[in-house]
Amino acid sequence: MLTNYPKLTEAEIGSTLSRPLLVSAIDENTDRNGNTFVKVTLKDGFSDVTAIMFSTSAADLEARLIRRNTVVDAVLTVAEYQGSKSFKVAKLSPATDKSLTVKDFVKLPPVDLDVMYNEIISMLTAVSGKEDAPISDLAIRILEAHKEQFMTSSAAISMHHNHLGGLLYHSYRMVKAADAICNIYTSLDRELLLCGAALHDIGKIWEYDTSESGDASFTASGVLFGHLYMGATLVKDLSAGQNYPNERVQMLIHMLLSHHGTQEWGAVACPAIPEALALHYLDNLDAKMDMFEEQYQSMEPGELSEKRLVGLDTRVYRMRTDTDRNGN
Amino acid sequence: MLTNYPKLTEAEIGSTLSRPLLVSAIDENTDRNGNTFVKVTLKDGFSDVTAIMFSTSAADLEARLIRRNTVVDAVLTVAEYQGSKSFKVAKLSPATDKSLTVKDFVKLPPVDLDVMYNEIISMLTAVSGKEDAPISDLAIRILEAHKEQFMTSSAAISMHHNHLGGLLYHSYRMVKAADAICNIYTSLDRELLLCGAALHDIGKIWEYDTSESGDASFTASGVLFGHLYMGATLVKDLSAGQNYPNERVQMLIHMLLSHHGTQEWGAVACPAIPEALALHYLDNLDAKMDMFEEQYQSMEPGELSEKRLVGLDTRVYRMRTDTDRNGN
Amino acid sequence: MLTNYPKLTEAEIGSTLSRPLLVSAIDENTDRNGNTFVKVTLKDGFSDVTAIMFSTSAADLEARLIRRNTVVDAVLTVAEYQGSKSFKVAKLSPATDKSLTVKDFVKLPPVDLDVMYNEIISMLTAVSGKEDAPISDLAIRILEAHKEQFMTSSAAISMHHNHLGGLLYHSYRMVKAADAICNIYTSLDRELLLCGAALHDIGKIWEYDTSESGDASFTASGVLFGHLYMGATLVKDLSAGQNYPNERVQMLIHMLLSHHGTQEWGAVACPAIPEALALHYLDNLDAKMDMFEEQYQSMEPGELSEKRLVGLDTRVYRMRTDTDRNGN
Amino acid sequence: MLTNYPKLTEAEIGSTLSRPLLVSAIDENTDRNGNTFVKVTLKDGFSDVTAIMFSTSAADLEARLIRRNTVVDAVLTVAEYQGSKSFKVAKLSPATDKSLTVKDFVKLPPVDLDVMYNEIISMLTAVSGKEDAPISDLAIRILEAHKEQFMTSSAAISMHHNHLGGLLYHSYRMVKAADAICNIYTSLDRELLLCGAALHDIGKIWEYDTSESGDASFTASGVLFGHLYMGATLVKDLSAGQNYPNERVQMLIHMLLSHHGTQEWGAVACPAIPEALALHYLDNLDAKMDMFEEQYQSMEPGELSEKRLVGLDTRVYRMRTDTDRNGN
Amino acid sequence: MLTNYPKLTEAEIGSTLSRPLLVSAIDENTDRNGNTFVKVTLKDGFSDVTAIMFSTSAADLEARLIRRNTVVDAVLTVAEYQGSKSFKVAKLSPATDKSLTVKDFVKLPPVDLDVMYNEIISMLTAVSGKEDAPISDLAIRILEAHKEQFMTSSAAISMHHNHLGGLLYHSYRMVKAADAICNIYTSLDRELLLCGAALHDIGKIWEYDTSESGDASFTASGVLFGHLYMGATLVKDLSAGQNYPNERVQMLIHMLLSHHGTQEWGAVACPAIPEALALHYLDNLDAKMDMFEEQYQSMEPGELSEKRLVGLDTRVYRMRTDTDRNGN
Amino acid sequence: MLTNYPKLTEAEIGSTLSRPLLVSAIDENTDRNGNTFVKVTLKDGFSDVTAIMFSTSAADLEARLIRRNTVVDAVLTVAEYQGSKSFKVAKLSPATDKSLTVKDFVKLPPVDLDVMYNEIISMLTAVSGKEDAPISDLAIRILEAHKEQFMTSSAAISMHHNHLGGLLYHSYRMVKAADAICNIYTSLDRELLLCGAALHDIGKIWEYDTSESGDASFTASGVLFGHLYMGATLVKDLSAGQNYPNERVQMLIHMLLSHHGTQEWGAVACPAIPEALALHYLDNLDAKMDMFEEQYQSMEPGELSEKRLVGLDTRVYRMRTDTDRNGN
Repeated sequence: MLTNYPKLTEAEIGSTLSRPLLVSAIDENTDRNGNTFVKVTLKDGFSDVTAIMFSTSAADLEARLIRRNTVVDAVLTVAEYQGSKSFKVAKLSPATDKSLTVKDFVKLPPVDLDVMYNEIISMLTAVSGKEDAPISDLAIRILEAHKEQFMTSSAAISMHHNHLGGLLYHSYRMVKAADAICNIYTSLDRELLLCGAALHDIGKIWEYDTSESGDASFTASGVLFGHLYMGATLVKDLSAGQNYPNERVQMLIHMLLSHHGTQEWGAVACPAIPEALALHYLDNLDAKMDMFEEQYQSMEPGELSEKRLVGLDTRVYRMRTDTDRNGN
Repeated sequence: MLTNYPKLTEAEIGSTLSRPLLVSAIDENTDRNGNTFVKVTLKDGFSDVTAIMFSTSAADLEARLIRRNTVVDAVLTVAEYQGSKSFKVAKLSPATDKSLTVKDFVKLPPVDLDVMYNEIISMLTAVSGKEDAPISDLAIRILEAHKEQFMTSSAAISMHHNHLGGLLYHSYRMVKAADAICNIYTSLDRELLLCGAALHDIGKIWEYDTSESGDASFTASGVLFGHLYMGATLVKDLSAGQNYPNERVQMLIHMLLSHHGTQEWGAVACPAIPEALALHYLDNLDAKMDMFEEQYQSMEPGELSEKRLVGLDTRVYRMRTDTDRNGN
Repeated sequence: MLTNYPKLTEAEIGSTLSRPLLVSAIDENTDRNGNTFVKVTLKDGFSDVTAIMFSTSAADLEARLIRRNTVVDAVLTVAEYQGSKSFKVAKLSPATDKSLTVKDFVKLPPVDLDVMYNEIISMLTAVSGKEDAPISDLAIRILEAHKEQFMTSSAAISMHHNHLGGLLYHSYRMVKAADAICNIYTSLDRELLLCGAALHDIGKIWEYDTSESGDASFTASGVLFGHLYMGATLVKDLSAGQNYPNERVQMLIHMLLSHHGTQEWGAVACPAIPEALALHYLDNLDAKMDMFEEQYQSMEPGELSEKRLVGLDTRVYRMRTDTDRNGN
Repeated sequence: MLTNYPKLTEAEIGSTLSRPLLVSAIDENTDRNGNTFVKVTLKDGFSDVTAIMFSTSAADLEARLIRRNTVVDAVLTVAEYQGSKSFKVAKLSPATDKSLTVKDFVKLPPVDLDVMYNEIISMLTAVSGKEDAPISDLAIRILEAHKEQFMTSSAAISMHHNHLGGLLYHSYRMVKAADAICNIYTSLDRELLLCGAALHDIGKIWEYDTSESGDASFTASGVLFGHLYMGATLVKDLSAGQNYPNERVQMLIHMLLSHHGTQEWGAVACPAIPEALALHYLDNLDAKMDMFEEQYQSMEPGELSEKRLVGLDTRVYRMRTDTDRNGN
Repeated sequence: MLTNYPKLTEAEIGSTLSRPLLVSAIDENTDRNGNTFVKVTLKDGFSDVTAIMFSTSAADLEARLIRRNTVVDAVLTVAEYQGSKSFKVAKLSPATDKSLTVKDFVKLPPVDLDVMYNEIISMLTAVSGKEDAPISDLAIRILEAHKEQFMTSSAAISMHHNHLGGLLYHSYRMVKAADAICNIYTSLDRELLLCGAALHDIGKIWEYDTSESGDASFTASGVLFGHLYMGATLVKDLSAGQNYPNERVQMLIHMLLSHHGTQEWGAVACPAIPEALALHYLDNLDAKMDMFEEQYQSMEPGELSEKRLVGLDTRVYRMRTDTDRNGN
Repeated sequence: MLTNYPKLTEAEIGSTLSRPLLVSAIDENTDRNGNTFVKVTLKDGFSDVTAIMFSTSAADLEARLIRRNTVVDAVLTVAEYQGSKSFKVAKLSPATDKSLTVKDFVKLPPVDLDVMYNEIISMLTAVSGKEDAPISDLAIRILEAHKEQFMTSSAAISMHHNHLGGLLYHSYRMVKAADAICNIYTSLDRELLLCGAALHDIGKIWEYDTSESGDASFTASGVLFGHLYMGATLVKDLSAGQNYPNERVQMLIHMLLSHHGTQEWGAVACPAIPEALALHYLDNLDAKMDMFEEQYQSMEPGELSEKRLVGLDTRVYRMRTDTDRNGN
């Protein structure tokens, strides 16, 4: 992400913004008078906006070498429409700084992807059982075999962790939280819980199609089978014919199948061992912490959200930090 | 608990058991032929059994100084009835060892009550905000003011932590888990979350009437107001007219009112700050870990529970530990 | 309300309307060509409409002393858009009749506010118990202490009684209905039920922020605590240290906490005394009678509503009054 | 009911009870040793008990002229079994007082059946519309045509008003409550609402089979069609070919079909006119007031019910009447 | 339907379409500048589109003899707006081919209406019981008495079979499926099940108002009574005073009242005989097969639907037919 | 099954029954006086009863060569207890007719197991696609590989088809019904639907443990994974590395995962192709037809069941066949 330019979200109404941006979508339209205009979606690495561009067409832009995933130098004017900001494209051309790539403009987790991946592998290695072929090795083998997709896939269409690396970030925080609570609930099997945390959503690499710029959409496999089944069969297939302790492999498969908690929320089986239930709560906790973190980015302390949040089922409040001393 | 006697749960069918026990209930009955007999509930500090005593009455026992909460020397014979053990009283008399008290026979948490209480206070002290009157001080004041009840109250009628000290044990593990996850979710307000974990069920000291031997029953207040409201008004009352930061006191009250998560599960408000939602999941996690721990005491590795567990909504499985090496 | 002008709802398509109105909101917009225009919300005391005003801006209007809550002389033209009326502002200036105020343009209940308030107080006085400090005195003290807000607050964001004085009107009719059914269900405690009816929604004075012109929006307190808890603690606080019969105060608090009937609908406790359950049904009855009354204002006899009504879960029908004589 | 004998519910443990009773059921059993014994259900007009009678059989009793619905002189001994009273028959013979009949021993509403029926007819007559053939005449015709069954039918299998005359008592109080709320909600059509209240459960005369002693059981018609459909078609059939105002007859049918409120609770249609919705709430209110009244007969002031009540979904509390003066 | 013209759904963006169409709705609008324009809904017998027509009004069109249900010769231009096609009217005049009627432009089932009706009658005749007055005769009499409406009514507002003849097509396929499964479940009463299949939705002829061009809207009767009650009373009325076997008529009425399966889905009674339950599943099966068939018309093999389908609760997939040979 | 002996269900109270029976369970008990007695479960091929045997023990029976799954000659006396029949063992000895085996006493489907199995294979063969390796071949290979278990497994713990061969009978009727409806819904892929019908519950061979006498109990795998997942992975594994058309194998797996219809009822994915949805309804239909057939065996025409049936959610009625001629 480029930090030496003003963010799109910070653009003032009435001002003009000039900076490199990524074109992530182009949508041609015709107005009532038959004139063609174009809506372009532009990303700065933190958020995206849709800007209108008059008297042009998708073909025009194509001719000027501007298409989906082109990095551009843009000049935008910022107006207001029904209480929200409205962007108009004043100028748009392929970026002069040729060193800029798509990666500079997509939203990423706050922790570096490699750092997170390596830390997951380290933690799995550390909890490894004493067997010749502990299931943490199985978990590592699975991650290594799908490393590329595991590191970049989104974790959702919307709702939470819906961006490039979202799956990795979600898994990473859960592995760490899993490790932390095993210190309190000492009867939990730490190796099993960490493997479950690392792999629980691995099926999402096939459930979603994550675009280069981080947008996710459902695949046919996602709709026909779901990530619980696909994750479970991945574990089943990669453990087949190996020396892993069978009982522990079965438990890991059960954890993947049951991590949604109840049938009502899509679990294939209800959690029948404590590690499976703990995994379910850690999953929920991380997803909802992410929703709060996302939402707070556009709220001030002391403010109430304008709407109920889907997934949290309430308006949320951001606590004031400059607290008074008057008692209540 | 007395550890130098055989446990009630370990008594073999066909054997005779002779040891001191606590009489926690006496129930007189009349059989079809008009003969009076008595069922006595006996506790050994780990569980309780009901034993039949023929040719006697409550008045007879009373005359022999045996009544509710009397420690007795008992001789029991163990038969089988419909696949379960059935106990018959062969002999019953006030215990000769006068040093034994009720406390020696009631079920207690696996951690010492004082140790847990002191650790909660220590942790609250450690996270204390820099204000003159941080809310962790408020939390400590509340606990100190109701220390006796907080330390002995049960946390439920049935389901989980339903024994003497259950509330303390439940709160203790949640405070520790809260502290642990704050290391992962660093935007959480640690002081607030620990205060919430310590106090979230404080209203249960009035919602239940916990007997000397640990059995809980609903009070009228419990039914009319519930522990969420009673806990919240306790915080409100004890903070009134003091110098605590108002915003933080309000957040603490919100956490108590919302810790059941949704209206459907009895929340007065839905969690609208991340600390409230984290508290909700920690509460659920601890309650269900306790259910598994309780259930596993009567299950062998590799075994499936006979019935679906209320609260877990499934039969549960206890993992085998002697795992084979055949892959799956 | 001004009754000597045509109502907004009665304006014919194609006609011009000229009358004083209240500006309750101003919303500036920019069209595709960069031209600024303004949408103004105008109220006549019965309903409100949004009218478009071209070639102007919020700053222009401000310069002409027209802002939120200004009374104006307006000339509007009425066109049709997608089957509905569409209003365009032809002329807008501060009202020449300086005696007109905001109050002349806001929707009010069909009964005078003072009349309703006084009748509630009278009825509470009349059912007063024989104690030195009956709870009806407590109810009166609470109302007197918050009279201003109680008389003007809305009773909802939308759905029912969502206008200035809506809370008072809702409470007023419930007190009267409560009194009426006590004649049938003679075992009900009339004083308790009337106090409950008068105070059940008192917490809404803090749950909503009702604007001068009657629009309600949620407060942070409303989201964090809800009106049930805030009403109950108000009763608790104002009865503290007084001579009121404790048992009856507790019952009143229980009624406020339980008047939503079940947890699913937000009740803090389920109604555990008949007065609490009767209060719940009276609340529902009044809310839904209000929905029908509102809806029927825009329906003719023999007509079916165009849509299912939220809150009634069905299309509603308005009965014909000129009934035929043909049997069925 | 006979009031000069001790009630069954007031019999003391250890005492002997001697009084006339009704035999409402005889159930022969064989114990493990092959001995036949009999359980007889006995009613005193307030409640019923089941008493054991050893060394006898149904055939023996028959030979002594004791069968279902025989009035007997009984001597019962009262023992205790698992905290409840247990009755044993010491003596049983046909009653010497031949003036006693079944009617002296069945539970009846607190208001005389004829008084209630006549008051319903009077009230319907009073609200009669000005038409030649008002629907209140239709309602009266329907009641007169099924007077016998309407006056004696139970209103439920269990839950509420489940006794002889229960349907009449339920309808009677609802007609009175309907009349009372029409004074508050003046836009309600009083004639329509009273007719709806009187007839809403009329289909229950065919849905249940009410025995001579007041026990109700489902009929095949009740299961196949339900009382909503059967009541509605009764109105349809009896209004056919007559001069009643068609629109009002249709509304009355709609009220019968919709009085359960929502499909989830069995409504054939959702209430689409205010009279139908008011009827729904009055029905609920009366049913639940009856549950409280029944339950309070076995509870003391200040007491909490032992269990959650089906239909009220909570334990209930009976308010203390000797209230203290200590504030709360 | 006219098959020698290009379909509306096949019109290419950028092209011009010239063909006869049916005007099924005219909607006048005013734009921001006060200019009137018109939206016309046009049907080609397979689908409908809404096209914009500038510089005209409903009155203008009326003057040119173009109104609702006029067949016109239309020239349309096809543009793109937000990824969808947008139609503009270039020319519109009453059709020169005067032989064209509304019927040529409405969507109809894939089987001829008369063929379906006659086959239903034939099948009912074939399963006729041996009685003098079998219920299949009753079913035929009912259909004959309402033949016109039964043949043309839609079976739904939206969702499935929502077009002219939809009710007939739905009933027709269910009669055939009913006949087929009776060969497997031989204990089912074939005559009863076929009568139920033919008549189950007959009440929809009054529940909906189906326009000449096939659009359905709710009637007041539909909202107040529903098609289950109206169908059941139709059977009741037409069987009254006739010689039909009473038990079988009752079963037929039960089947109509219960075919929605559970109260939650609007059943008046739950299916209590196997024929009623079979009818319920056949109804569901046919409705959902229709949803798939409709949806597949706008999907290619191998494609996933863009959205979850209401009523199917999932995105749907259309299977590829050119299957590969690579195993999985 | 032996048809030349009186059935257990037909034994008259007061009579003595003498015939060969199967001992399917032995349960030793101790009465209050310390005497041991035994409850034996006895089967006759149609139902089972539990009979009491005094003055004996499991060890006594063992010594007489009577244990679980022994065929015995029994003499039983039939008494009445609380309205039901009660059986006492008068005599019990190993059967003299040594040709009798367990198979003679277990409940079986009404169609021969081999006949059903062969017919399924024939039908699958008949619908075989034209590919070299059609999926019907895959289905046949799967059935052949697990023929023994597929033919004997129960289809449920209780509810429906809960006996030896229940899974086969359930699958058999569904294959036939699937074939029948493909004649009506001609766009359905017949091969796919028949394969789905044959295999949909194949995972139950591992979900349940069906005893030699037909009683089913859950396995750990059943609880941890469920039959949907286990069936789907069986198809996946047996198709791997083969030449089956991949798209069709995927569809078959989807059908197994989705045949419960919705997540709420345990579906892993919602049916996204019409064959999957049709399979769901055929499954429900067959299960509930079986419930009616089972229930009707103990009901007379014109009778209402005593209780609501779990799974049908209503009391059921058995239609009278001797219908009157009075109309309704």
